Amino acid sequence: MKGTQQRDSARIVDSHTRRGPDEVVVENSLSISVTKPGLDEVPLGVTMRTPGRDRELVFGFLYSEGIIESAQDIEDIELKQDTALVRLADSSDFQPSEHVRNATVTSSCGVCGRSSISGLLHMHGPPLSEEIRVDQGVVRISLDAMNSQQGIFHSTGGSHACARFDSSGQLIHICEDVGRHNAMDKLLGRRFLTDDWPLSNYLVLVSGRASFELVQKALVAGIPMLAAVGAPSSLAVELADSFGMTLVGF
Amino acid sequence: MKGTQQRDSARIVDSHTRRGPDEVVVENSLSISVTKPGLDEVPLGVTMRTPGRDRELVFGFLYSEGIIESAQDIEDIELKQDTALVRLADSSDFQPSEHVRNATVTSSCGVCGRSSISGLLHMHGPPLSEEIRVDQGVVRISLDAMNSQQGIFHSTGGSHACARFDSSGQLIHICEDVGRHNAMDKLLGRRFLTDDWPLSNYLVLVSGRASFELVQKALVAGIPMLAAVGAPSSLAVELADSFGMTLVGF
Repeated sequence: MKGTQQRDSARIVDSHTRRGPDEVVVENSLSISVTKPGLDEVPLGVTMRTPGRDRELVFGFLYSEGIIESAQDIEDIELKQDTALVRLADSSDFQPSEHVRNATVTSSCGVCGRSSISGLLHMHGPPLSEEIRVDQGVVRISLDAMNSQQGIFHSTGGSHACARFDSSGQLIHICEDVGRHNAMDKLLGRRFLTDDWPLSNYLVLVSGRASFELVQKALVAGIPMLAAVGAPSSLAVELADSFGMTLVGF
Repeated sequence: MKGTQQRDSARIVDSHTRRGPDEVVVENSLSISVTKPGLDEVPLGVTMRTPGRDRELVFGFLYSEGIIESAQDIEDIELKQDTALVRLADSSDFQPSEHVRNATVTSSCGVCGRSSISGLLHMHGPPLSEEIRVDQGVVRISLDAMNSQQGIFHSTGGSHACARFDSSGQLIHICEDVGRHNAMDKLLGRRFLTDDWPLSNYLVLVSGRASFELVQKALVAGIPMLAAVGAPSSLAVELADSFGMTLVGF
């Protein structure tokens, strides 16, 4: 399976050791940089990701970092095994000086509580328009559906998933990655490739815990309801609360 | 409990909803910058962490980033709620130009497979001297011991732990944090406060998965055996293999 690799291992069951290959999730780097006419390449950072769907990952990353606002901001993306060079359109608003601030904030996933929340009020992206109402049973059905589609996880136990559902619990799209923020970026990036927008009528599930960073990414995409298999953090709750997002844990 | 906060929640059990407070793990930012005589403040990045043991976190972070080599490299640390200003000793080797490279590599937890592994060969820190041999039962006992001491996790379900054990499975030290890399940094930072070194006779357990970043941090500290409750990634296996570290998953 793409996204997994075989490695030698020694498996210990009931004190018996059996040597042999085992599947692990692939983790590899992707350096992302941007350029536009008249501008030298600006490195945006390196992410450790599971290869595959790199185009979606880059679109989603640039969007949630506030570097692009629409697909028209990108002229093309030159993807290699471990680099992505994004050529922005001449018309794009990207300013390296502004980016530096953004990158500091987001590559290390954070800024301080109150100041970040007020900072986020100035984020681009649609505000949360309306609440989504889903039946309690739908969350449970969606969790089961996501779980059944986590192919890399079933082979390796080492990947996160992020999945989008409609309000009836119908699975629309699922992404897997060794990093949960990458899985979310891939999910968001998909919209640019399919023009499926807005995301304001969808429920998004994440396989791990709900951090500040995941809530922030979901918010910029206008997602009204985020459900996590794991626990939310204090700042995730605070941020969701400030923006009227419904946050579900466990 | 320090490290947790109460938030309003609606708890749904068997279709019944009960409103009331629930404990969540605290997630908040810490901006780390360094300065030394004749040098302006250099921002190193922002980490989202669970407050408490910030001094250990900063020591461990600076060490695993390659910015300090010993406690003598630090004159003092000025800690506030969301900032840490590190005053390096005049004798410290820190060069901002070199740091920029380091920070790019580590704040986003990665560089590419082969190149990073050869790059890591030049890391400071003791090489792995000898193998540690522990009985299979010791790993299991250690896991139970770590689990019983994860106070924040038991209240919130939202935190990671990192714990150090001797070869008989005796728990020496445990740290909890919303981020697994922070839990490891706190564990490493402790050595500077207690002068407990080297770490080459210890087994370290982490509550989550084993990523490239965690293996890298353990390696610079000379830890010969890392056991993760979850799965390892391909790059974690590759890195551990290159340095002769024993890596245990699940």
